[in-house]
Amino acid sequence: MSLLVVGSVAFDAIETPFGKTDKIIGGAATYITLASTYFTKKANLVAVVGGDFPASDIALLQSHGVNTEGLQIRENEKSFFWSGKYHNDMNSRDTLVTELNVLGDFDPIIPESYKDCEFLMLGNLTPAIQRTVIERLPKRPKLIVMDTMNFWMDIAWDDLMQTLSMVDVLSINDEEARQLSKEYSLVKAAQKILTMGPKVLIIKKGEHGALLFNKEQVFFAPALPLEEVFDPTGAGDTFAGGFIGYLAKTGDISFANMKRAIIYGSALASFCVEKFGVERLASLTDTEIQDRVQDFVDLVQFEITID
Amino acid sequence: MSLLVVGSVAFDAIETPFGKTDKIIGGAATYITLASTYFTKKANLVAVVGGDFPASDIALLQSHGVNTEGLQIRENEKSFFWSGKYHNDMNSRDTLVTELNVLGDFDPIIPESYKDCEFLMLGNLTPAIQRTVIERLPKRPKLIVMDTMNFWMDIAWDDLMQTLSMVDVLSINDEEARQLSKEYSLVKAAQKILTMGPKVLIIKKGEHGALLFNKEQVFFAPALPLEEVFDPTGAGDTFAGGFIGYLAKTGDISFANMKRAIIYGSALASFCVEKFGVERLASLTDTEIQDRVQDFVDLVQFEITID
Repeated sequence: MSLLVVGSVAFDAIETPFGKTDKIIGGAATYITLASTYFTKKANLVAVVGGDFPASDIALLQSHGVNTEGLQIRENEKSFFWSGKYHNDMNSRDTLVTELNVLGDFDPIIPESYKDCEFLMLGNLTPAIQRTVIERLPKRPKLIVMDTMNFWMDIAWDDLMQTLSMVDVLSINDEEARQLSKEYSLVKAAQKILTMGPKVLIIKKGEHGALLFNKEQVFFAPALPLEEVFDPTGAGDTFAGGFIGYLAKTGDISFANMKRAIIYGSALASFCVEKFGVERLASLTDTEIQDRVQDFVDLVQFEITID
Repeated sequence: MSLLVVGSVAFDAIETPFGKTDKIIGGAATYITLASTYFTKKANLVAVVGGDFPASDIALLQSHGVNTEGLQIRENEKSFFWSGKYHNDMNSRDTLVTELNVLGDFDPIIPESYKDCEFLMLGNLTPAIQRTVIERLPKRPKLIVMDTMNFWMDIAWDDLMQTLSMVDVLSINDEEARQLSKEYSLVKAAQKILTMGPKVLIIKKGEHGALLFNKEQVFFAPALPLEEVFDPTGAGDTFAGGFIGYLAKTGDISFANMKRAIIYGSALASFCVEKFGVERLASLTDTEIQDRVQDFVDLVQFEITID
């Protein structure tokens, strides 16, 4: 089923203990769409870049099956740029540069051909823009998944609450879940957030895995223990892209299928961190993905007979 | 099969955001033996207390099936005492008081009736005392599991290395694994530690679950997401007690059975934190344990068909 992804397509400059990059392709929607194309070839992108954005990077997305009809190119402006430096433990980073540029007044124009999309992934953007996307769709998608971050909780709370009330699945990290709910316990946080609109909540815990909640059930997917994390940039978006890509492929939004989608998302994220930027994510084979999913099965599988 | 547990039996005074206790029964071997008795009724304890230790606390252990023949009581001395205060997030604590008292010159005398034990659990003690226990057993047990802590890495490295070389399974937390191996990645840490003696390594990550490694395989068990952690004291020892208790009950030390043992250990630890000290651990029913294990199955169970 067709997927619409809205979010940033951008330049990143990344420094880790293993090295540093010049400006490379980054942005939430880049990782989300690339990851999703391993499951669905109907990944429709809505984003904006400047005239400085290389045609080769757009071609990279297209070569993976991303439909870039909705990618606006503002010739005389500059692309969104983020630069960050990871600490030695890779769990924390400093933002060195954030230049909004074209993202500052992004108007998410949705091409006619996208308007029947059944799965909508709202990458991290201002909650007002995310809401505009929902409002511009003539028919509500079967599933709306939203990512956000602490920044919007700080400066756009009311907007965030309004957008949250309109989505089906929220994907955030553990600190964001605590900030949003004002609860330290993630179980209590989830209960509270599930009264704000979303029927399903994903709490990403980085190297500690991810939790999937609905009002009755909880599922935990571990992260794969890795020898080396080379660059964590984009791992959360890759996870989200794998998640919604798998749901769009199967068309099944049951909790049982969301569990599988979480495992596929986790598998893709475990590749993402192996190289800088999208390098590893852009070169996966189906066999590699299936083998990695098998690693997840092996990692958590046990046999217990409950008396 | 019979189990020998050596470790501290002590007084704890605990303060958490939920309240504080006077001196209550604590100590690694207390939690380990109590947890193990839910699986095996042959839990033989070697420890030392002072004359100040209440007969009612010893009776509590006995009523659960702990054999206290090897519990030395030094009438004119005082029991080991630890006092700590947990921070609001429950993940860190300050030690307020540590009085070694009788533990300062603990000589682990092993009663004749214990000497055929097939499972040995060495709770956290000086590595030299742990080694003495192994050396005093006429026949090497089928499985030796050892717990330790960063303190011994700081002050007794050579002793620790010598004891490590004699055990089968090491159980430590993530920070301790990093300190012991001088590797940040837990995968690399495990590879290194598995060259130091142990054939199996358990890395406890508290609320983030636990990893089980041998040279070829890795297994991950999550911690159950809890609404409230009331008092984390003893959770790691309870986990270890459930682990070795289940192994001693089944007599099976395969990796597959160690996975089950880890789940049972995690289930018991999830109860331990619900109340102060051993209160919850001392009052469990088999049905409660089986229901909790089912919660773990439900938490991680998913069905994926790998193409």
